[in-house]
Amino acid sequence: MTLFSQRLAMLQAEHHLLTGRINQPILPGNGIFTRFADPVVTAAHVPLSWRYDLNPATNPYVMERLGVNATLNPGAIELDNRILLVVRVEGYDRKSFFAVAESASGIDGFRFWDKPCVIPETGSPDTNIYDMRLTRHEDGWIYGLFCAERKDLEAESGDESAAVAQCGIVRTKDLLDWERLPDLKTRSSQQRNVVLHPEFVQGKYALYTRPQDSFIEAGKGGGIGMGFTDSMTNPEVGAEQVVDPKIYHTIKESKNGQGPTPLKTAKGWLHIAHGVRNTAAGLRYVLYCFVTALDDPARVIYRPGGYFLAPEGAERVGDVSNVVFSNGMVQRANGDVLIYYASSDTRCHVLKTSVDQLLDYAMHTPEDPLTTAGSVRQRMQLIAANASQVVSSP
Amino acid sequence: MTLFSQRLAMLQAEHHLLTGRINQPILPGNGIFTRFADPVVTAAHVPLSWRYDLNPATNPYVMERLGVNATLNPGAIELDNRILLVVRVEGYDRKSFFAVAESASGIDGFRFWDKPCVIPETGSPDTNIYDMRLTRHEDGWIYGLFCAERKDLEAESGDESAAVAQCGIVRTKDLLDWERLPDLKTRSSQQRNVVLHPEFVQGKYALYTRPQDSFIEAGKGGGIGMGFTDSMTNPEVGAEQVVDPKIYHTIKESKNGQGPTPLKTAKGWLHIAHGVRNTAAGLRYVLYCFVTALDDPARVIYRPGGYFLAPEGAERVGDVSNVVFSNGMVQRANGDVLIYYASSDTRCHVLKTSVDQLLDYAMHTPEDPLTTAGSVRQRMQLIAANASQVVSSP
Repeated sequence: MTLFSQRLAMLQAEHHLLTGRINQPILPGNGIFTRFADPVVTAAHVPLSWRYDLNPATNPYVMERLGVNATLNPGAIELDNRILLVVRVEGYDRKSFFAVAESASGIDGFRFWDKPCVIPETGSPDTNIYDMRLTRHEDGWIYGLFCAERKDLEAESGDESAAVAQCGIVRTKDLLDWERLPDLKTRSSQQRNVVLHPEFVQGKYALYTRPQDSFIEAGKGGGIGMGFTDSMTNPEVGAEQVVDPKIYHTIKESKNGQGPTPLKTAKGWLHIAHGVRNTAAGLRYVLYCFVTALDDPARVIYRPGGYFLAPEGAERVGDVSNVVFSNGMVQRANGDVLIYYASSDTRCHVLKTSVDQLLDYAMHTPEDPLTTAGSVRQRMQLIAANASQVVSSP
Repeated sequence: MTLFSQRLAMLQAEHHLLTGRINQPILPGNGIFTRFADPVVTAAHVPLSWRYDLNPATNPYVMERLGVNATLNPGAIELDNRILLVVRVEGYDRKSFFAVAESASGIDGFRFWDKPCVIPETGSPDTNIYDMRLTRHEDGWIYGLFCAERKDLEAESGDESAAVAQCGIVRTKDLLDWERLPDLKTRSSQQRNVVLHPEFVQGKYALYTRPQDSFIEAGKGGGIGMGFTDSMTNPEVGAEQVVDPKIYHTIKESKNGQGPTPLKTAKGWLHIAHGVRNTAAGLRYVLYCFVTALDDPARVIYRPGGYFLAPEGAERVGDVSNVVFSNGMVQRANGDVLIYYASSDTRCHVLKTSVDQLLDYAMHTPEDPLTTAGSVRQRMQLIAANASQVVSSP
């Protein structure tokens, strides 16, 4: 056996094992959702043919020619009874692109389609695009809203990393053909984490926004906002009203942003968002939950306190440590809800829950009392109520 | 079996195993102290009744209602031959509160008391309180000094995270009833890591302070200071003298702070403190040691160079990675010294050592020579001295 065929056989066997792996639930869990033992998509899931030149004549060492660094922040949708993730795939060159990975269960067995997505450019070419939110809108289109970054040409000389982040928009019927629409126009100099609401609101398209001043810092703005536009082919929002602000000494004191497209339930629109606080070791990203009114998706009606999900175990460390981030959530016909998230900007995971569980969580978890004394009061009430239960604690 | 009883049984079994676990020493260690295999207190040690609504009617999924994110930075004391930790417990809502965990050995078997501590507020309610130092003072009281944070109302608009940190004070006889005293008044705009010295100094209460300008940065101030007050019921210190400054290119170049209440020994007051330096991945916190004179606790007489403890293995990663922090130390009747510390703001550990070992370490570890050449000279001397030893090296 040649070096070539030997190495290739090893690589293929490894890839085969990885993509065929069964994902086990971690029990008992917290009753709100079930975590799973393995990530659902990693850089190693990307097909070998996307990374290696497989010609023995030109690549005798079976050398990686175009490595993949990470797979993260997937948008998610169900089509023809299959879960499709639009994964942010990051090459060794630090550029991200989108690629669809498909699975029947949504829990394991994810395989990439034959080729990455080709997203057309606007007249102002994107340097980098990432973090797509998929929305099946009642107008009949599937929209993909994503962050489009371009170099900030007005930044102080010397800051090679300064960028302008805007909301890029595509629409599709099948995740194969993508029609690029003009970028969203807003009054904010930067826009990230923009998400399209799936229904018209008073006859207009409604968009969750995150007005911010600078590239990384949310600055004076921040909070999750909402704006409206008459058209997605010429999208422009005026005033953005704040739906959910950042708040001192909560899990969203530094900044926050809308996660996946919200889920319509009998009790309201169910939202997963990310909250950020600063620490001596950098920013910490967690997920939290809130519910808005069916007749006014900008009005919050339930605010369960604290975080919904924080990084645990191996999730804590990655290219950008101490981060969980979600921009994809799917409700299946049987009531299951699958929430996709990435850990530490490196790999994709899934949570399995249900609309019933999410609503129970959202409606019966007390709001953040904003002070230690308030938190102790909440906990003392819980302890007192439990004292009368038959079951012996702890 | 219902879903409720099934899940509850799993949760109880898991909790029972965790709290009954025997903690094994890690040998041979460094001779200065012994580490142990497991943390002594984690978020999972917190009783289920503090986190779950245990009523099947109102919580059919056995869902966590008030999660606990972390247990860290415990104050420590021995009462009636039991080790009591006043643990900083942080909920999912990012608010901390205090709760007592008790163990006979101090090494394993820690169990929380029935309820968290209820700490009264002053006229200016705390947003968050944490990091209690317990001092059994010769005036007969046990004092708890802790950090009391409140929102900085004068901060630049938009910075939702800006806080003012002050020294909150309680006193108690039993860790059950806590009398809140007024916050410490000093000339610094921020105070953290304030610790009460256990004896009067020239008839006054002596306090270790950490004057600093801003919330996170120690700024121009910094160093461990000392101030004096006539009364703890109206505590106010004037000038703060520097006991142990921060120093360029040492393990305390960015900032430092007093750890637990110092330990009285035949040779002097033995101090454990934390030192901080900045890195590309954020601040790194280690512990170091120094000894001050019995007749003047503000005068340093031994300064062993370098760190005493740094994060290792799994300790390195957590909510705030690359941190060890200690604010609790107990000397037992048999001469054992137990030093409690938290790793990466996430879980509590113990070190076992003795007064003899700590003094040997403090008196015979060379001082930091402050330069590479000086460090090489120290090491060459050690190697040369060892060359004449009978034992064969490595």
